[in-house]
Amino acid sequence: MTEPSRAKIKVSELYQVGIVVHDLEKSIEHYQNTFGIGPWGTMNVDPSIFSEMTYHGRPVQHRFRAAFAMVGPMQLELIQPVEGDNIYSDFLTEHGEGVHHLGHVRVANLAEAIQTLEKEGFPCLQSGRSPGGGYAYIDTVNALGVVIELLETP
Amino acid sequence: MTEPSRAKIKVSELYQVGIVVHDLEKSIEHYQNTFGIGPWGTMNVDPSIFSEMTYHGRPVQHRFRAAFAMVGPMQLELIQPVEGDNIYSDFLTEHGEGVHHLGHVRVANLAEAIQTLEKEGFPCLQSGRSPGGGYAYIDTVNALGVVIELLETP
Repeated sequence: MTEPSRAKIKVSELYQVGIVVHDLEKSIEHYQNTFGIGPWGTMNVDPSIFSEMTYHGRPVQHRFRAAFAMVGPMQLELIQPVEGDNIYSDFLTEHGEGVHHLGHVRVANLAEAIQTLEKEGFPCLQSGRSPGGGYAYIDTVNALGVVIELLETP
Repeated sequence: MTEPSRAKIKVSELYQVGIVVHDLEKSIEHYQNTFGIGPWGTMNVDPSIFSEMTYHGRPVQHRFRAAFAMVGPMQLELIQPVEGDNIYSDFLTEHGEGVHHLGHVRVANLAEAIQTLEKEGFPCLQSGRSPGGGYAYIDTVNALGVVIELLETP
């Protein structure tokens, strides 16, 4: 029996686990050489990748490095903050290395989804726009125990 | 070009994210009603489910409750500790609610895999046996930023 969903945002797929680390190369080395997880693709994320970066609702410019690998159906993302205010540095200070977020919750309109969730008491922690899309981390820690990442793609 | 893997344990698939929570029902309510994630199947885990329970290498008897739901390819496991020494209570004390482990790393022989990883400096945090199988959490936090769960199935 299927009841109509009261969900404000329907999350029908999650596949990414985002892990914040101090040293991307050192972590990749452990994942790859001890546990056979790889290959890894890396990228430098800065204002050339995402425009309109926000951090707790205010404009910001920051840089971080990310690495991606598939482990069966799960994508691991390792993230090392580099510069500027960002929620990964905050996480490292508060928790040390660990799982930071689950993603992606695909949405048709990022701005609308952020607004809907903010009205429900889930503020946007950090976001960025790319051509025709963008991402946003939502503070769902009190409800779900973990941050979720919204993604709009062109 | 594929190089021979130096991996001690080859992790070829992960699909489960284990999240420790204070109150299973409250968490399921949030997941289900606000984010449309469900249905959830729950189970009570106690010595009738797993024998030879260990906690940091010593015999223990504990109880916890778990709930499972698929979100696309990812399985979420919510865990609420109930009674006895267990690593979920320790995690709640140290971190609060959050992502505790990734799984499952399927192994042919649990005891051998635990021994191999212990030799590499990754101790077994908690384990239990079921008929023809069992599970073990391995302390890979310093290397991977997160605990991994090994699983042997019949």
